[in-house]
Amino acid sequence: MRLDINKPILDRNDTLAEENRRLLDEHGVFVLDLMASPGAGKTSTILATIAALRERYAIAVIEGDIASRVDADKISAHGIPAVQINTGGACHLEADMIRRALDTLDLDTLDLIIVENVGNLVCPTEFYLGENAKVMILSVPEGHDKPLKYPGIFQIAEAVVLNKYDTLPVFDFDEDEFRRVVHSLNPSAPVFALSATKGDGVSDWAGWLSARIESTRS
Amino acid sequence: MRLDINKPILDRNDTLAEENRRLLDEHGVFVLDLMASPGAGKTSTILATIAALRERYAIAVIEGDIASRVDADKISAHGIPAVQINTGGACHLEADMIRRALDTLDLDTLDLIIVENVGNLVCPTEFYLGENAKVMILSVPEGHDKPLKYPGIFQIAEAVVLNKYDTLPVFDFDEDEFRRVVHSLNPSAPVFALSATKGDGVSDWAGWLSARIESTRS
Repeated sequence: MRLDINKPILDRNDTLAEENRRLLDEHGVFVLDLMASPGAGKTSTILATIAALRERYAIAVIEGDIASRVDADKISAHGIPAVQINTGGACHLEADMIRRALDTLDLDTLDLIIVENVGNLVCPTEFYLGENAKVMILSVPEGHDKPLKYPGIFQIAEAVVLNKYDTLPVFDFDEDEFRRVVHSLNPSAPVFALSATKGDGVSDWAGWLSARIESTRS
Repeated sequence: MRLDINKPILDRNDTLAEENRRLLDEHGVFVLDLMASPGAGKTSTILATIAALRERYAIAVIEGDIASRVDADKISAHGIPAVQINTGGACHLEADMIRRALDTLDLDTLDLIIVENVGNLVCPTEFYLGENAKVMILSVPEGHDKPLKYPGIFQIAEAVVLNKYDTLPVFDFDEDEFRRVVHSLNPSAPVFALSATKGDGVSDWAGWLSARIESTRS
């Protein structure tokens, strides 16, 4: 039932996403769609990624939230262009929202746009925005059983960031089991354990993203 | 656009939820709908609540997850009837899913059913299941800014549980600011700071729930 009702929305979304893709290709801009639960550390990971890559790439951020512009303000404070999308009630970003955000950015001057999707492990997986890659973040406090419970997002992600890795001693998180289940769901996705606020492990993640960006240019 | 398309689903859902409500009233069963992000500690809070109230009330649990029966197995291990609903891809429970779960339980023998909704701060707020009360959990690692970013769930919850309170020293969580924003969104909702796995603060929460159950009986 739900699939039939949603199908027209998804079809229309995909058409608009393809238009975004063409627009971004024309300007040589790579787009990363970052997905995670509320509070997994999306904004912190974006800030750490910006710190690691801002000398190499011109970066902008599109922030998706139900309400508020808390996150866009955090990004702007670091001198990075940030567009805040408020979805009202919607639990994910859609391609038309991204298009409106792209229209406010000077794409000629940009190399990389990081999209912070709405905090949600389910809905954002279904919507193609025109991005080059979807990546997801799980944070240690959320627990190692999340891949079993939300397999779809682990399957669609090109890479998995395991954030708040410094809090491993505080939580009952079985890292081996986590990596085992992620690998079984998505054998090709690397897992980057890092602490976005402290910086540990960020260089490996930033190195992967940088290589991923370069791979689209060659 | 989305509202119009979803309206028939919501209308149908509300009709079925009212049927659930009548069925539950006939049997004198109180239903709590527990909502939170993935990994906020819904299952741990349910286990702590069961430990606090099982001598007073006959309890069953309905577990909602995209996939797996990890949570139902955890509950069953404590000798409590547990029904696992797998939603496939859906980011919330709906009334018809609850009805099918109710049909598998012996309502005559029960006082309290705790429903663990799918981990999500957005979608579950829109669907009435026939419950007596919706309560939400935020965990300290998720951050104090979540009420600003997901106001809807804080507004619809009758009470807010602040879980993993024992990890406050590890995270940059401004409890005063959190309580201030929650209060501005929902002045009547009490906030229960607790650690579900360690037990601290559980008695206040369980006392509130018990009083809430009794208020429906008088």
